[in-house]
Amino acid sequence: MTSEATHSFDRQWAELAEIGRRPATGGYRRYALTREDHDLREWFAGEAIRRGLDLTTDRMGNQWAWWGDPDTTPGVVTGSHLDSVPDGGAYDGPLGVVSGFLALDRLLAGGLAPQRPVGIVNFADEEGARFGVACAGSRVLTGALTPGHARGLRDGDGVTMDEALRAAGRDPEQLGPDPETLRRVGAFVELHVEQGRGLVDLEQPVGLGTDIWPHGRWRLDFPGEANHAGTTRLEDRRDALIGLATTVLAARSAATEHGCVATVGKTVIVPGGVNAIPSAATGWLDARGADVAAVRRTVRDVTAIVADAGGCVTEESWTPTTRFDDELLGRLRRVLPAAPLLGTGAGHDAGILAAAGIPTGMIFVRNPTGISHSPVEHADRIDCLAGVTALAEVLTALVGTTP
Amino acid sequence: MTSEATHSFDRQWAELAEIGRRPATGGYRRYALTREDHDLREWFAGEAIRRGLDLTTDRMGNQWAWWGDPDTTPGVVTGSHLDSVPDGGAYDGPLGVVSGFLALDRLLAGGLAPQRPVGIVNFADEEGARFGVACAGSRVLTGALTPGHARGLRDGDGVTMDEALRAAGRDPEQLGPDPETLRRVGAFVELHVEQGRGLVDLEQPVGLGTDIWPHGRWRLDFPGEANHAGTTRLEDRRDALIGLATTVLAARSAATEHGCVATVGKTVIVPGGVNAIPSAATGWLDARGADVAAVRRTVRDVTAIVADAGGCVTEESWTPTTRFDDELLGRLRRVLPAAPLLGTGAGHDAGILAAAGIPTGMIFVRNPTGISHSPVEHADRIDCLAGVTALAEVLTALVGTTP
Repeated sequence: MTSEATHSFDRQWAELAEIGRRPATGGYRRYALTREDHDLREWFAGEAIRRGLDLTTDRMGNQWAWWGDPDTTPGVVTGSHLDSVPDGGAYDGPLGVVSGFLALDRLLAGGLAPQRPVGIVNFADEEGARFGVACAGSRVLTGALTPGHARGLRDGDGVTMDEALRAAGRDPEQLGPDPETLRRVGAFVELHVEQGRGLVDLEQPVGLGTDIWPHGRWRLDFPGEANHAGTTRLEDRRDALIGLATTVLAARSAATEHGCVATVGKTVIVPGGVNAIPSAATGWLDARGADVAAVRRTVRDVTAIVADAGGCVTEESWTPTTRFDDELLGRLRRVLPAAPLLGTGAGHDAGILAAAGIPTGMIFVRNPTGISHSPVEHADRIDCLAGVTALAEVLTALVGTTP
Repeated sequence: MTSEATHSFDRQWAELAEIGRRPATGGYRRYALTREDHDLREWFAGEAIRRGLDLTTDRMGNQWAWWGDPDTTPGVVTGSHLDSVPDGGAYDGPLGVVSGFLALDRLLAGGLAPQRPVGIVNFADEEGARFGVACAGSRVLTGALTPGHARGLRDGDGVTMDEALRAAGRDPEQLGPDPETLRRVGAFVELHVEQGRGLVDLEQPVGLGTDIWPHGRWRLDFPGEANHAGTTRLEDRRDALIGLATTVLAARSAATEHGCVATVGKTVIVPGGVNAIPSAATGWLDARGADVAAVRRTVRDVTAIVADAGGCVTEESWTPTTRFDDELLGRLRRVLPAAPLLGTGAGHDAGILAAAGIPTGMIFVRNPTGISHSPVEHADRIDCLAGVTALAEVLTALVGTTP
């Protein structure tokens, strides 16, 4: 890796570092269709213009920067997303976008004569932190999420995506699947920081993705009856939080029993007064695992507990096992023979594109703590640069030959 | 009860009905130092002016409307508060203020020649819904809450009471105990809707308070470690919500075992993302009971569970048993011989004034469902008017004789 590439990595990282960072936690809040989102999109456009790339935006607002004309020959696309979970880390998403630009720089500097165009994408709203549906940008693009459903999604303040689009100066009527954009994508390779300790244990800086675990989100609603916390006898209470608390513990037990993972990370208690018995409680269950039957058994067990408490379960999303393209994976393995093969419990836009029939692969970069979705998420710079090198080699192999 | 009084009750109730009401729930959000609070204070001032009363505001912003000069002879005060819990009912607080004005109308109409002044008070921030400390208005007035502590309290958005006071056009430097105002209060009788079913079971429209149960609030903080909900093995997790959920259930069990009540009505989960393991969770415990030792045992049991989960407990408030003045209660019983005697698990400004040495009593009005701190809180108009009659008779007995 040249010192120029290191310098460019540091510059891009420093420019992104201040956008949406909360000093109180050191984490990022980069939500769809906010000021921070706007600034990140401007940054992406600036990097594309700096390199003379053709910048396009599809019907969902995903940004594409092209080297070459993908309407003549479908291209090889890399990239990821720039949005974050609440108090997320710096690497989840942005590392893939930054690495895309740096890998392209390597191709340009090496005088590569590409046989196919190269694209870099910034997918909108990957985390779903604001409107609750992960990978909203790629889902609408591929038709996995209908524009009507997407526009009606509401954030925590009750603002619909439709309203947020208008507030951001966009036309919600434009939202929809975009086969013209998809036709330009001959293959997609997403680079992402690993969200686990697989590469640490295997002592490798870079790995290759084989599949994405089946995963979903379920909303758990519990009814109650508001009343005074001091004057209502225990036997007269219908406290909605009791059911939710029981279910949080039951979800952990069920996941342990069935060998998958289950999490309640978000809750809403109504009315939320210290001296008021909760009249309603809602929790969101995130469940995933290598084995689809185990995940389904876990959700079935949780559903039974919720029903016992008089509550109900609504499936908000479900994604079956996604296997990445075998032929593409074979080519990636020939370029990166030392890279371990990893499955992942995290959803990615790569999974959505794979499900839409586009040959898709993933490159993971070592995460020394395994921690992600946290302000302390980290990757060593030397590993990030190894990821850039790996991505540049992969793109070179996929689009052409060096002179 | 005259039709004129009924008309006046309906008018006052209709005027208050629209202030701070949320159409979505039908409940009220009337928090300290907000627009709604301002409107309620304007309403109180208007009722005082309409009757030719002297309006004063003490150093904490509690409003006092006087008939007669309390600096010559300490007066008999009635009234309550106009603020609410989140999505609270219409009666908790306002019924006492409205009944105070209507009872005074009866005294005026009856040609009473009072030996002592009569006052009506609107205590500020009784529910503590915004800054977390209940009865903040009467606590600062009596010195039970220091102005420094009060000014530093923060609402859910991080705004301090100091900042909120300035935003409301008030001078936070003025905050402090106000012995001059307290000296004017020879006795205090607070009328309040019952927050339980005692009077329903006893088939009486009006009751008298004997004591307020010991009660307190404790903040329960649980640590965790943020991480990705899909990629972090269960055995590697430190999920803060697991500790809180365990404690919510343990609090119910401990209260059942020790014969008191315990509630977790408010929680905060950080970062609060559906796919992020909670890195911190906070719950607030409200515990009360007729027996102080039982409450303490319940809190001790909860504290042990919190400690097991690596968390910590902070006592935010504690109020021991408050017995109302025996001599005053004797006089109230002679005026209202049919009124049952009731203890209550709810805190009131009356309890704070009693603890400050002011002879204090309470009148409760029947609540047909027993429900309070809820949009469906209700009292029948006929019972409200019976409460006014009772209060008027009590005031008459305490301040003078009819001609």
